[in-house]
Amino acid sequence: MDYLGKHISGQYDADLAHIRREVMTMGGLVEQQFSHAIRTLLEHDVELAEQVIAGDQKVNQMEVAIDEACVKIIAKRQPTASDLRLIMVILKLIAELERIGDSAEAICRIAKQDFTPEQLSLLTSLETMGNSVMKMLKDVLDAFTRMDMDAALTVYLEDKRIAQKYDLVIRQMMTFMMEDPRSIPNILIALNCARSIMRVSSRCQNISELVFYFVKGQDYRHVGDDVIEKLLKERENPA
Amino acid sequence: MDYLGKHISGQYDADLAHIRREVMTMGGLVEQQFSHAIRTLLEHDVELAEQVIAGDQKVNQMEVAIDEACVKIIAKRQPTASDLRLIMVILKLIAELERIGDSAEAICRIAKQDFTPEQLSLLTSLETMGNSVMKMLKDVLDAFTRMDMDAALTVYLEDKRIAQKYDLVIRQMMTFMMEDPRSIPNILIALNCARSIMRVSSRCQNISELVFYFVKGQDYRHVGDDVIEKLLKERENPA
Repeated sequence: MDYLGKHISGQYDADLAHIRREVMTMGGLVEQQFSHAIRTLLEHDVELAEQVIAGDQKVNQMEVAIDEACVKIIAKRQPTASDLRLIMVILKLIAELERIGDSAEAICRIAKQDFTPEQLSLLTSLETMGNSVMKMLKDVLDAFTRMDMDAALTVYLEDKRIAQKYDLVIRQMMTFMMEDPRSIPNILIALNCARSIMRVSSRCQNISELVFYFVKGQDYRHVGDDVIEKLLKERENPA
Repeated sequence: MDYLGKHISGQYDADLAHIRREVMTMGGLVEQQFSHAIRTLLEHDVELAEQVIAGDQKVNQMEVAIDEACVKIIAKRQPTASDLRLIMVILKLIAELERIGDSAEAICRIAKQDFTPEQLSLLTSLETMGNSVMKMLKDVLDAFTRMDMDAALTVYLEDKRIAQKYDLVIRQMMTFMMEDPRSIPNILIALNCARSIMRVSSRCQNISELVFYFVKGQDYRHVGDDVIEKLLKERENPA
């Protein structure tokens, strides 16, 4: 995050630098939690699942600590407009990260159960989707760190593709259930995992909107497709 | 919200009062959206469903506008610790409200489809859960307005009961699916509605934590049951 200028107060700079470091650490931790969650799902690694579940506490603590540090810096330092905007997006980022952590935990709570071979093969069918979302998370955190509009836009668009994959998974699983009703409880479990993965994708999209907001100074939540199209065109034909 | 003192600057007071009014309006709107969503579900009122779906835009706009007003007041007025705390909880509150609005919209998108009598009876089985969560939402918004610890604690505890109801619904529906696999697509739709209602309950719990935070000055997210037990004991045996 090199987009922060110097301030007259050395302590202020130090406080901001501290928050920046903590945010990056939290991002790294959540990325690891989610990638471990996907691995436990595919390899049915119960020990790793337990580790992720225990690790969610750390994610939660980091959110609370960074939140406090942000409020403190606002109260003490009266940040200027652009610093304040950064602090506001950090507050929203850590809320999204915390929820991604929750999704990782939810996946691991499912993944640590005893599985039948049928369940294992169902869960393996989520591999492509899981890997795509893992890449999204990595990319959007990079985009946030560099406040890179272009990279954020790529992640934003990816969410639609994930949603299509998810619909496909749902339809497949519905067919399985109708063909073999005994498989219903197993399939509902796999559907829950698919939904958790899908949600992480939406949260990555939310994070990409934070980058838009920081760079453009405009709130991009809830905007229509036309506004996003315009951003896309700007990317293709930079002024 | 009478817990705000007077400030030297009349404009500052006016700005804060404006935000307060907007928050209350947004709360009222979201309450109405959710209560309409539950009604469309039970009465299959397609016109009302369309109205709720269209109304979600308004909810989104209000969130963005209040968010901006909060950032502006922080930048311009350098609020003191307790005012800042209030603004921070308002920022979190409106994010929760916006998501409750999303859930109401999601329910209405389902509810406006053509229903078979079987689907209608499935959705009617969500009535008790829907009404309980509607009451939670109303109560937690009242608790927030008055920053009433006691009322917030009651809502907080209610979430566990809703989760139990939800588990019961899931088990029932799983049995239905296994008995009659042709009902699976219908039941998955009802399960989605049940999940949306359940999520609103969790968001009400999140809002109750904001009241704890404002009143006690401590972050109550992710705390253990023992900390909540302590709050409960304080309620039963006030010092």
